[in-house]
Amino acid sequence: MVIIGVGLMGGSLALALRAAGKVGEIVGYGRGIANLQDAVERRVIDRVVTSLGTVVRAADVVVLATPVGAMGASLAEIAPFVTDRTVVTDVGSAKTQVVSAARVALGERFARFVPGHPLAGGEKSGAGAAQADLYRGQRVILTPEAETDVAATEQVAAMWAAVGAEVRRMPAGEHDAILAATSHLPHVLAFTLVDLLARAPEQRRVFDYSGNGLRDMTRIAASDPVMWRDICLANREALLAALADYREELEGLAAAIEGGDGVRLLDLFARAKRTREAMD
Amino acid sequence: MVIIGVGLMGGSLALALRAAGKVGEIVGYGRGIANLQDAVERRVIDRVVTSLGTVVRAADVVVLATPVGAMGASLAEIAPFVTDRTVVTDVGSAKTQVVSAARVALGERFARFVPGHPLAGGEKSGAGAAQADLYRGQRVILTPEAETDVAATEQVAAMWAAVGAEVRRMPAGEHDAILAATSHLPHVLAFTLVDLLARAPEQRRVFDYSGNGLRDMTRIAASDPVMWRDICLANREALLAALADYREELEGLAAAIEGGDGVRLLDLFARAKRTREAMD
Repeated sequence: MVIIGVGLMGGSLALALRAAGKVGEIVGYGRGIANLQDAVERRVIDRVVTSLGTVVRAADVVVLATPVGAMGASLAEIAPFVTDRTVVTDVGSAKTQVVSAARVALGERFARFVPGHPLAGGEKSGAGAAQADLYRGQRVILTPEAETDVAATEQVAAMWAAVGAEVRRMPAGEHDAILAATSHLPHVLAFTLVDLLARAPEQRRVFDYSGNGLRDMTRIAASDPVMWRDICLANREALLAALADYREELEGLAAAIEGGDGVRLLDLFARAKRTREAMD
Repeated sequence: MVIIGVGLMGGSLALALRAAGKVGEIVGYGRGIANLQDAVERRVIDRVVTSLGTVVRAADVVVLATPVGAMGASLAEIAPFVTDRTVVTDVGSAKTQVVSAARVALGERFARFVPGHPLAGGEKSGAGAAQADLYRGQRVILTPEAETDVAATEQVAAMWAAVGAEVRRMPAGEHDAILAATSHLPHVLAFTLVDLLARAPEQRRVFDYSGNGLRDMTRIAASDPVMWRDICLANREALLAALADYREELEGLAAAIEGGDGVRLLDLFARAKRTREAMD
């Protein structure tokens, strides 16, 4: 198995597959040498390679676990070595763009690429944050295209099932719309809130008086900036649509506060409370 | 001690003072009879009264713990019975409006009112949610006015210290600006997000694919709707200013995503990450 990008996601998959006894040698590749050495020391991966040719040719599975913006280049790099028996998959949070990049980079081997996205993670990053149980009980969405090899898709589904995840399938566009609303929008709202507070004139006092509510709400603003820049750009259209809806709703709320419309506020807050309680 | 509004805040104060051995009889008053009976059964309060005259006259301390919108009426109700030895305080999240209401309602006894706000709470409500350790290690802000009796302020400060809270003092306007940014804005953002997701056409799927990040971020959207309607209206000006800043920043973010401005996104996300990590 070759993992390109041995961070929280790729590292946790390595640890989980090893714990489940479902993997032989795990080879890591990536840009951050210190992180890769750390991954070896922590026995997340067996060894590091500095070129992909030999190991990709010999691999059963190649997992792309870099930020989504780097996946096009990684796919181009491995393309010459992907055989008709290699399975290539990824863990990116935006699927349409990665699928397009794979189609271009892999050409006639595109059928070997199974687009995937485990709905797990956290605000920690790097191989040091990897946990063997990260995917246990979590959902993984696969978005195979019409051309995607059925046996390759089954193999990727089995890999995720082996680490305790629940696998679902849906079209890439549907995945991207759902994730824009449930993950990408919340993240940019949290980043924006923290940045606004950081720039407040009374900044130090602001943070001095922050409570548990604010800490819970902004935890995701400590997530990896490169990863989130790439997601925002990769899922731009769906995210902009979600942001436009949110900004419109916020405008209505501001108007209700300005107009002293207590009925409307109560109605909105009560509906939100019922909805939020139903999420637990 | 008389508690008007025996919910999470008032009930927790009662339990904490009792646990600390710092209170004699605790009398409850409020609108929800079932909740008050529940409070007696749980030994949060000793008994319930249906009129305030006798108990307020005999009380050392009267604590207003209703939603802030009801405090003006409560202050008018107790005003005839407040003596020059009674201490009156509150736990409201917006101070300027409550101070104005107290000034009007209490007249020459206004000096006996010590405006207060414990920075604690949660999305649960009612006497059943009260906890004796809710205020331990939390901050309480007192916003005494020029006329406020110094000994009364000391007494309220000592009450909060007795339940493990750390007491700070600042002007009401400063309190309201800080809370608008750190608490009121985050709450309305969370309410708005949950309401938007609830109204999405693919609502069921949206919630089916929500992760820990979304759950953390929206936990506060399960907070009491009446309490939050009142806070939004009571702290309208400061909250609208914070909302305007947020909407402007969100507009800038949407423009950066639309324009593919990865440098600006990375800069904002990296700054937010550093700031959020410094909060822990």
